Amino acid sequence: MEERANVRLATPEDASVLARMLHDFNTEFEMATPGADALEPRIRELVRSGSVVGLIGGEDEGLAILRFRPSMWSRGEIAYLEELYVVPSRRRQGIGEGILRRAIELARERGADAVELGTSVDDTGAIALYEKLGFCGEEGGPGGPTMLFYELEL
Amino acid sequence: MEERANVRLATPEDASVLARMLHDFNTEFEMATPGADALEPRIRELVRSGSVVGLIGGEDEGLAILRFRPSMWSRGEIAYLEELYVVPSRRRQGIGEGILRRAIELARERGADAVELGTSVDDTGAIALYEKLGFCGEEGGPGGPTMLFYELEL
Repeated sequence: MEERANVRLATPEDASVLARMLHDFNTEFEMATPGADALEPRIRELVRSGSVVGLIGGEDEGLAILRFRPSMWSRGEIAYLEELYVVPSRRRQGIGEGILRRAIELARERGADAVELGTSVDDTGAIALYEKLGFCGEEGGPGGPTMLFYELEL
Repeated sequence: MEERANVRLATPEDASVLARMLHDFNTEFEMATPGADALEPRIRELVRSGSVVGLIGGEDEGLAILRFRPSMWSRGEIAYLEELYVVPSRRRQGIGEGILRRAIELARERGADAVELGTSVDDTGAIALYEKLGFCGEEGGPGGPTMLFYELEL
């Protein structure tokens, strides 16, 4: 699956590819976006600084964005999967799974303790994928209370 | 409410206070903790570096831990409320609300676009507080699909 997805780690030179997909992502899901041209220099700088870790799959047809923060509880990090996207024409072909598998592997290689993410109940395809790869939406493990994500816009 | 909660920004010198409360928090909720003594130097360094922003309320009786990351979508940041805790004997007295209000104000002062957090359906007291202060658990605003939090331990 991962080999088919042809996943690579994004470099600052991939900023335009990432910016285009991120813009398309937010456009599709009716979320605000400043446009690919405005995103590109910011993404380039965030990738360069290491604040954003990007993975690109297929023929520039999917991405994952990871953020890492040092854990308070161990010497490791916590990985946060901020975005996971595959272009509409290439969905259901294993690209998202390949990218997500690589993202997990990368987090493990860095010694992260966990990968966290937020999603919504409507995103059934993504949830099925997360659960297939071992993510749990229940606190403390299967059978625990459902975990929720909240946001306050400022 | 906030004045009663007597909230202050944690400095590296507060590492022992933060470490003690974080350890007690995880002990109460049966989550792993390396112990306050092991936490303290790590917390001190994370506060010093700015990776952890801590708020302390009451007479060292409650805390909030915030993490900030640069947004990809704007020049601002995204704040993540990683922990919110009040010692058992001082709950239901407005300390948590005071700390959370100060956390939101701090995020706003830094120009953050949003504050995000994960919780669980069992944590009804916390959820009531989040909703009172304007947090929304539905994607895109009230009426949207419920947002979920997932985790993969590595």
